[in-house]
Amino acid sequence: MEVTGEMLVGARAVRGTEGTIYAVNPATGEKLTPAFAGGSAKDVDAACALAKAAFDAYRATSLEQRAHFLETIAQGIVDLGDLLVERVMSESGLPRPRVEGERGRTVGQLKLFAALVREGRWLNVIVDHAMPDRKPAPRPDLRSRKIPVGPVAVFGASNFPLAFSVAGGDTASALAAGCPVVAKSHPSHLGTSELIGRVIQRAVADCGLPEGVFSLVFGEGNAVGEALVSHPAIQAVGFTGSRRGGRALVALAAAREVPIPVFAEMSSINPVFVLPGALAQKAEQMAQGLADSVTMGTGQFCTKPGIVLGMEGVAFDRFRQAAEAAIAAKSATTMLNAGIHSAYEHGVAQWAGHDKVDKLASGQEPAKSSFAGQPTLFATSAKDFLATPELMDEVFGPTSLLIACGGADDAVAIAEQLEGQLTATLHMTEEDTDLARRLLPVLERKAGRILVNGFPTGVEVCHAMVHGGPSPSTSDSRVTSVGTMAIERFLRPICYQDFPAGLLPESLQENNPLHLWRLIDGKLQQP
Amino acid sequence: MEVTGEMLVGARAVRGTEGTIYAVNPATGEKLTPAFAGGSAKDVDAACALAKAAFDAYRATSLEQRAHFLETIAQGIVDLGDLLVERVMSESGLPRPRVEGERGRTVGQLKLFAALVREGRWLNVIVDHAMPDRKPAPRPDLRSRKIPVGPVAVFGASNFPLAFSVAGGDTASALAAGCPVVAKSHPSHLGTSELIGRVIQRAVADCGLPEGVFSLVFGEGNAVGEALVSHPAIQAVGFTGSRRGGRALVALAAAREVPIPVFAEMSSINPVFVLPGALAQKAEQMAQGLADSVTMGTGQFCTKPGIVLGMEGVAFDRFRQAAEAAIAAKSATTMLNAGIHSAYEHGVAQWAGHDKVDKLASGQEPAKSSFAGQPTLFATSAKDFLATPELMDEVFGPTSLLIACGGADDAVAIAEQLEGQLTATLHMTEEDTDLARRLLPVLERKAGRILVNGFPTGVEVCHAMVHGGPSPSTSDSRVTSVGTMAIERFLRPICYQDFPAGLLPESLQENNPLHLWRLIDGKLQQP
Repeated sequence: MEVTGEMLVGARAVRGTEGTIYAVNPATGEKLTPAFAGGSAKDVDAACALAKAAFDAYRATSLEQRAHFLETIAQGIVDLGDLLVERVMSESGLPRPRVEGERGRTVGQLKLFAALVREGRWLNVIVDHAMPDRKPAPRPDLRSRKIPVGPVAVFGASNFPLAFSVAGGDTASALAAGCPVVAKSHPSHLGTSELIGRVIQRAVADCGLPEGVFSLVFGEGNAVGEALVSHPAIQAVGFTGSRRGGRALVALAAAREVPIPVFAEMSSINPVFVLPGALAQKAEQMAQGLADSVTMGTGQFCTKPGIVLGMEGVAFDRFRQAAEAAIAAKSATTMLNAGIHSAYEHGVAQWAGHDKVDKLASGQEPAKSSFAGQPTLFATSAKDFLATPELMDEVFGPTSLLIACGGADDAVAIAEQLEGQLTATLHMTEEDTDLARRLLPVLERKAGRILVNGFPTGVEVCHAMVHGGPSPSTSDSRVTSVGTMAIERFLRPICYQDFPAGLLPESLQENNPLHLWRLIDGKLQQP
Repeated sequence: MEVTGEMLVGARAVRGTEGTIYAVNPATGEKLTPAFAGGSAKDVDAACALAKAAFDAYRATSLEQRAHFLETIAQGIVDLGDLLVERVMSESGLPRPRVEGERGRTVGQLKLFAALVREGRWLNVIVDHAMPDRKPAPRPDLRSRKIPVGPVAVFGASNFPLAFSVAGGDTASALAAGCPVVAKSHPSHLGTSELIGRVIQRAVADCGLPEGVFSLVFGEGNAVGEALVSHPAIQAVGFTGSRRGGRALVALAAAREVPIPVFAEMSSINPVFVLPGALAQKAEQMAQGLADSVTMGTGQFCTKPGIVLGMEGVAFDRFRQAAEAAIAAKSATTMLNAGIHSAYEHGVAQWAGHDKVDKLASGQEPAKSSFAGQPTLFATSAKDFLATPELMDEVFGPTSLLIACGGADDAVAIAEQLEGQLTATLHMTEEDTDLARRLLPVLERKAGRILVNGFPTGVEVCHAMVHGGPSPSTSDSRVTSVGTMAIERFLRPICYQDFPAGLLPESLQENNPLHLWRLIDGKLQQP
């Protein structure tokens, strides 16, 4: 397999006609070969028409077929070996261990969804038997299951070229649900996207599925993405990226003749509260943990701690000094692309020049030639933070803002004023329990995940994970984009009333041939 | 208890300041006393502020407390006795048996949600235990549950003054989820709304809940509803009504600084396919069933069959003639209000004057003095239907359109062209199975509920019910507004990472003190 610069429209490889795009090595600024060509609305239409045509056949596949398909993709990614790892490294500036780790996560995620598909509990089978003798009126036989919503558009994210991209969580959960996927590559990692796309394309063929189950399109500007979200065949959208980008897609989807949901995971500043007991006991250890979390992946995680709140005093001074030292010791590492790098520099310059913000520390100077992000640490007071709304804006990159609170009331006031967040974190000891209990109801209203004595970077792919949160951290707080619950975004319930046995979908048949968990007349029953 | 014309803002009764509104008896056209006064944005703000203030305390109630609260409301409705039944009859024109039946359904619905709350499976407890020795990185302890989204705005529907109104399915499911409710009465049944509102208000007090758990506001125009949907405290909206009204609320909610979901159940023409085997076997019986369903509740059901498709031929002729006779025998009965009556008359006049539509039959002439809807039956051909998009618009009232198809391809083509629907129905015998199998995948894409050999009016309140469907029948095909799954609209998942035992919510504690179903390390476990 090699990178050719072609889009994948169903079973075909198609060279675009709309301008030339190059991936760029952010460590060197060099253009990477080959040249990619942008797609047109016509290419999007071809991909979406194939997806629509494939939908009924794909959703009719057995659970086993669909699980095997996901596993075939997973194995195909493993089989790409160093070809993939090196392409990701050159397109993203991410170091090998991170890329290999992310590959493992991506493969594991596909396998987890394969297991989920096989188990089939997500079909949510419910049977309410007829009551022919009920008064005043008989009850019909009612059975429901979930079916996929239809073709899904997936936008690759810049910051996880594998795990949140062409075969990432959105694609894995959509394919698991039974939805064909039309993916749009992030322009920063076109070669990575093509390699992964070819793996999926081959898996579609190897598994005997209709070609429209997967397509991959490119486009540098917004036109291709807009055409995709506007296409009548597309029934839902998965997106991870900026607040501006996410909101634009949400607005576009809402303005369609038939509006569709956009599951956009956007910005978050992931507040960390370092409570007095924890400060007294482990200020230095928390400071090191914070610096590690803030600079992990050059701060380009959706869950990077962007603000850290503590109570003024000797212990918070120790914490601050330790955090300064830990940040000062950090290297400047390559950011994902020129745009992200320049936005980071701009954000840091704004804070540095802000009269309510003090710059506490900078990490090591970056080499002049690369898009490296120099870690920084800033500070402000609770009073100034509360009075300065722009300090709640995310600065994407290796920086964080320490906030000195006069007391518990300040911390609670800031928690109440926060926008919706992906995460919130408490560092505490047993003696902080009362304050934690006071903060917790507020943080539950604000965040999708709450951590104690950890750091929010590192999002486990499992059943209990919620990578979501109230607006504007995501466009829909009722769902998650990571973990098995992510499949629910792409399903809808459908009820069958008084169906003859021969016409019922297999999952709803009385003798339970698929061995599914079922809610029967209000009682959940094991297969 | 008596009807005073006051709004209910938390524990208070408040007389509005914005104009005078009267409920009108649609059977007589007479204004009903007392006068109601419309609310202002200030009243809405007061109600929403109370709801916000009540949220944390209300969601912290035990499952038993919340279930008891729902049951207290149910009993309070029963205790209103004839005071309620007569007020509903006079405000809606609905006959006593229907009102009593709807009361039973409303009470049963509240009790069903009470049972659901007690069982607690909707909390969706998931536990993924820590794996401290996992390589390359340990897994933290992750636990998730669902929490309510926040205060919910509920708009009373015109056509079910009890079951889809102040204490209807939206309110029952929102309160069950732990969300305070601010209800806006439909202007057609203000007294009914006040009576029910006072029952809820009293239940709030009797159960020792914070007063903000429930408020009720009035308003004749759109201002009060707009203020409600725009209020920052409101986190979700339940609505059943017209497409225009629903879309306006969706747009308003999307334009907020923090957008919120609107669960709007809007229009549907509920196609019924009478397949050849069924036509041959039971044309007359189906025709009578159709006429009964079309005129039930004067055709003012969301699930009224608006179009009926059959294959041209002798059997379809028999069906048509029988339907003509059955409709001709039907009385004109009182519609819900002057606006609905005039919209029905307008819709029928448009079809009657349409050059692609034939009028087949009219029911009995209405009395001149009342807002009575005269049943009607129309016909067109598949070819004309496919070429005439306006024939897909819902005409709300006792009318239906028979569509003569040249063959199976016509029926499939129309199914493919349909907008999203609440229901689709097949009348069939075993010999129609092949055609049913051909239609079914199409209908699954179009509708939330599919029936065989029944009529879609009559929506069972149970676990398997889906009263929902693709746009524009609702604003979100992933949910239902009837049945226990309706609670999911008002819940969102939240994940707790590495929480100390003492800080974990009771539902997530290791020893399962609430005896809940839990997904533990991927295995669903019975309490």
